[in-house]
Order: sequence, then structure tokens, then C-alpha cells
Amino acid sequence: MVHADASKFAANITKKETYTQVLEQAETLFDGQRNWLLILVFSNLANAASLIWHAQKSMSYPSNQNNWAGFYVVDPVNEKQLILGPFMGKVACQTIAFGQGVCGKAAQAKETIVVPDVNSFPGHIACDRDTNSEIVVPILLKDKVIGVIDCDSAVANTFDSEDRKYLEKLADLLSLACNW
Amino acid sequence: MVHADASKFAANITKKETYTQVLEQAETLFDGQRNWLLILVFSNLANAASLIWHAQKSMSYPSNQNNWAGFYVVDPVNEKQLILGPFMGKVACQTIAFGQGVCGKAAQAKETIVVPDVNSFPGHIACDRDTNSEIVVPILLKDKVIGVIDCDSAVANTFDSEDRKYLEKLADLLSLACNW
Repeated sequence: MVHADASKFAANITKKETYTQVLEQAETLFDGQRNWLLILVFSNLANAASLIWHAQKSMSYPSNQNNWAGFYVVDPVNEKQLILGPFMGKVACQTIAFGQGVCGKAAQAKETIVVPDVNSFPGHIACDRDTNSEIVVPILLKDKVIGVIDCDSAVANTFDSEDRKYLEKLADLLSLACNW
Repeated sequence: MVHADASKFAANITKKETYTQVLEQAETLFDGQRNWLLILVFSNLANAASLIWHAQKSMSYPSNQNNWAGFYVVDPVNEKQLILGPFMGKVACQTIAFGQGVCGKAAQAKETIVVPDVNSFPGHIACDRDTNSEIVVPILLKDKVIGVIDCDSAVANTFDSEDRKYLEKLADLLSLACNW
């Protein structure tokens, strides 16, 4: 299978089936890429962002209204700051302090935050005015936050308990598959 | 200006005007992000990939048929190997040896390669069967290759001397703006 085929998702499958394919493809892609180099962690995250993006785009409305999917990682020098990682979508904020916006709050709380309407979220950082809902899932390694998965949508109420469940599984996989 | 606005390009401007905006936005985005950390280089490359992708998508046919835009960086441990960096598009090959495919050949030769038809390019690596033309521009630091810009298109003969000229300017900017 050529690599790009990993981004192909059938249009008529359920959210569960789509995310299950994401997890299987991710596991295959990361296999043998475990390495002490941060550069290979980023390489895995780049392909993972592509998988999430194309999976959500293949889902039914409103999931296919996603407009950003990617990662912020904890700054190794300032552990209370997130730095922009690989992503799909429009240009994004390069640094986010712990506690700021949805990403910073999820990183600080070590808990997933689902935001049905970002305009009602206190302290939301508007990287893109087109964004209306968001989910941020922390990636934990031995109870320490090492980064977050961040997905935005142009439509309110896009992300539900199923997105949460499978993106948390992906966060676990990334935590195990990469030597952070 | 919110960050996502950097990805907005008017539809009725020339390729020259579009790429000039890419260079200006890139310079602004990278300003103050110069840092010894590899993680910040990757952060700059993530936003740069987004800029290139949206710039080309805003251009007229065939430029808007681009299907991958991003980076491969030289492996710090094995300097004859490229590792996948941030990108926009479908899942991609994670490592490419110097001399292999268009990316590996451009890295080895330290010269831009424009490929009008990838199917006629000896040793082309088919990460995506939908790709028909490609441009790879090496990023040089003091005559040493540190990475490449890679752009693919679903249509043959997409990339011309103007793409080459401005992507080479972007490579120079990235070389100067990031502490590799």
C-alpha cells in the first residue's frame, strides 16, 4: 500500500469505523519509527494530523466541517508552554501558555475539553475566526502532559463523546508509540 | 490579524503576488521565533507548509491542483537520510535516503529539481499514485543541505520557473529564520 492510501476513508462508514481505521493506520505507520529522536516524534505527529484530518473530512456533517487538526507539544525548555506542532489547516498560533485558551486549559487540567461553542468559552484564543467548536485531548506520559491533540470545526457542536473516546485512544497510542 | 488570516490569498492575483505574500507572511510569522530548539524550527515549518498549501490552492489551474506541500529534514543521526517534516496533504513516506526519488536526488545534488511528469522520473517514489508532477527545493545552510521543500500536484507540468524562483527564496528565508 502506498502511504497516501492511509488517508483514504470510505464515505459510508460510521464514525466508530472511521476512527478505528485511524487507530489501525496510525499503529502501522508508527511501527518501527520508535526512536529517541524528537524529530521522529514530529514525523509521527505529521502523519497522525493527516490521518485525523482526512478521517473527519470523510465523516458526515458536521464532522466534515473540521477546519484544523493537529498538535501542540510541551516546550522542553518552558514546561508551562505549548508550541505548535504538525497540523492540517490554516496558519496557527505558535505558542500557547498553560491555562490559556482551550489547549492551555486542557494541558493544565490533564483532561479532554469539548467546546460546543468557542464563542462562549472564557479566554478562547481566536487563531481562526471561522472556528466555532473545538476538542482538545491531552497526551499523557506517566501522568505528565507532553502535548495535546487539537481539532477545530467551522460548525458549533461538532465534537461528541465518540470523537472524545477515539481521540483519547489515539493520544494513548501516540504516547506509547513515540519516545518523547 | 488573527493567525489564520495569513492563509488567505486573493483569487485574482498573479503567482508572483501570491508568492510575495507567502514570503512576507513567513517573515512576520518567524519573527521572534528564532531559537536554538529544533522544536521551534518544526513549528516554523508547520506554518510554512500551511502558507505554501493555501497559496498554491488560491492560484489558477494547474497550481490549484497541488495535492501535497511540506518538508523533509535531514536526519541529525544519519546525515544521508531525510525524515518527514510538517506538511499538508495525505499521509507520506517517513524516511527517504539521499539519492532516492526526487527529494533524495535534490538533497544529494543540492539543487532544485522540477519534474513535469513523475512517471518519467527514474526512481520516483510513489507516496501517492495521484501525484503527477513535483518540485523539490533544497534548504541550504552554509552549503550544507538541512532539508527540502517538497510540492506535489495531481496534474502534469504544474511547476514552472516562477514556482522555482519563489520557493528558493522561501528556502533561503527558512535557512536564515530558523536556528537549525
